[in-house]
Amino acid sequence: MIDTILKENERIDQLFSTDVKIIQNKEVFSYSIDSVLLSRFPKLPSRGLIVDLCSGNGAVGLFASTKTNATIIEIELQESLADMAKRSIKLNKLEKQVTMINDDLKNLLDHVQRSNVDLMLCNPPYFKASETSKKNLSPHYLLARHEITTNLREICQIAQHALKTKGRIAMVHRPDRFLEIIDTMRQFNLAPKRIQFVYPKLGKDANMLLIEAIKDGSTEGMKILPPLVVHQDNGDYTETIFDIYFGENGKSHD
Amino acid sequence: MIDTILKENERIDQLFSTDVKIIQNKEVFSYSIDSVLLSRFPKLPSRGLIVDLCSGNGAVGLFASTKTNATIIEIELQESLADMAKRSIKLNKLEKQVTMINDDLKNLLDHVQRSNVDLMLCNPPYFKASETSKKNLSPHYLLARHEITTNLREICQIAQHALKTKGRIAMVHRPDRFLEIIDTMRQFNLAPKRIQFVYPKLGKDANMLLIEAIKDGSTEGMKILPPLVVHQDNGDYTETIFDIYFGENGKSHD
Repeated sequence: MIDTILKENERIDQLFSTDVKIIQNKEVFSYSIDSVLLSRFPKLPSRGLIVDLCSGNGAVGLFASTKTNATIIEIELQESLADMAKRSIKLNKLEKQVTMINDDLKNLLDHVQRSNVDLMLCNPPYFKASETSKKNLSPHYLLARHEITTNLREICQIAQHALKTKGRIAMVHRPDRFLEIIDTMRQFNLAPKRIQFVYPKLGKDANMLLIEAIKDGSTEGMKILPPLVVHQDNGDYTETIFDIYFGENGKSHD
Repeated sequence: MIDTILKENERIDQLFSTDVKIIQNKEVFSYSIDSVLLSRFPKLPSRGLIVDLCSGNGAVGLFASTKTNATIIEIELQESLADMAKRSIKLNKLEKQVTMINDDLKNLLDHVQRSNVDLMLCNPPYFKASETSKKNLSPHYLLARHEITTNLREICQIAQHALKTKGRIAMVHRPDRFLEIIDTMRQFNLAPKRIQFVYPKLGKDANMLLIEAIKDGSTEGMKILPPLVVHQDNGDYTETIFDIYFGENGKSHD
């Protein structure tokens, strides 16, 4: 089965803390730690509807599926990425729980009912379209990383329309856009409530942030969660990250 | 000399990483880690003018004095606190560098020229006047901790008036007011540039934040500095905090 499910240059990666297998193609798109951390950041509703925007090859929604019985809808504009996700869903026999829709997130309300989503997950393009420095990429990575086909404003707007009142959106992004992120969220009545900064090592500036906002919530009482440090001084993963990747049981193989 | 400089119930505390001695009175006011961290957070200008607002018994400005040749003006509304600071300035023979003004910070421009301050330091009242839960305090602590005689808006407004263009304000505050802090700063064209969250222990939510903003700066390129963790799991200070309190040399007495 595995031979027939893979296309040229594709391989299967597994997140060992789960049984989830993800079809990847380094030349086209492969998930990174951002997706793993995002899938573990919000408290997932035990049932109801989760939507994963900008879902790429579907990693975030597939990882999340192991922690909830909620229905998960993934939406991705790029056909080849959505196609990998569809085959990963099959590979993991998750067709009943997870659906990939190959469409622009602008059209989300063609696929889900307005004000009906419990949780939205989003690993969006990090860079502004005007930040050209890193544009010598494959077209697939270019669209995934730069705000060419969508942007923060559009994502927050669609979240405001699709989420239930008190529904939540959880996003991973870059600290240098932090002010813009919280401004844009609040512009669409998404109140930031939980923020966790991710540091590559203990003595380094944060290079990632996880943020969760509540639709129509108050902006009082925001929490800054414990720092998430990825690497020890010697370059190994910290225990926290090791557990996320390999599970607590993984430690016995340490 | 020390006997004659102290009033009833006062004692002298020393920040051992410096030679600075601070006159304290637990019943009236004594500095805490917030002041120490604030004094070490911004890059201090080597000369020019530093103003310390809400300066209490003068700890922040006195600690800062050991790292700069800039003139330091401290301003404090409460007469008894300003009086302790004046005597601490004498005790440390810092009269040429440090001046305490016993006045309302609203009147700062009566004492310094408009647009002439290089750096402003501020350890403000953390709690809104409406947060009554902790109001069973001495009147001195009440004014120091609650926004009764001043507030965030007034502090940012006076900073905008007193700072040079590209002058900086560094503040210590609480994470649950983070959104309000950055909104108010930007309202007065103070662009947040460096933020450091302080965590009581590695696995705990942040309980303090240090923030530096630049007058009339752009809001692009904000940095989240490495996490500052105060205590190790066993309750001892972390190495970073130990060094700040006792100096790197302090370690030889460990």
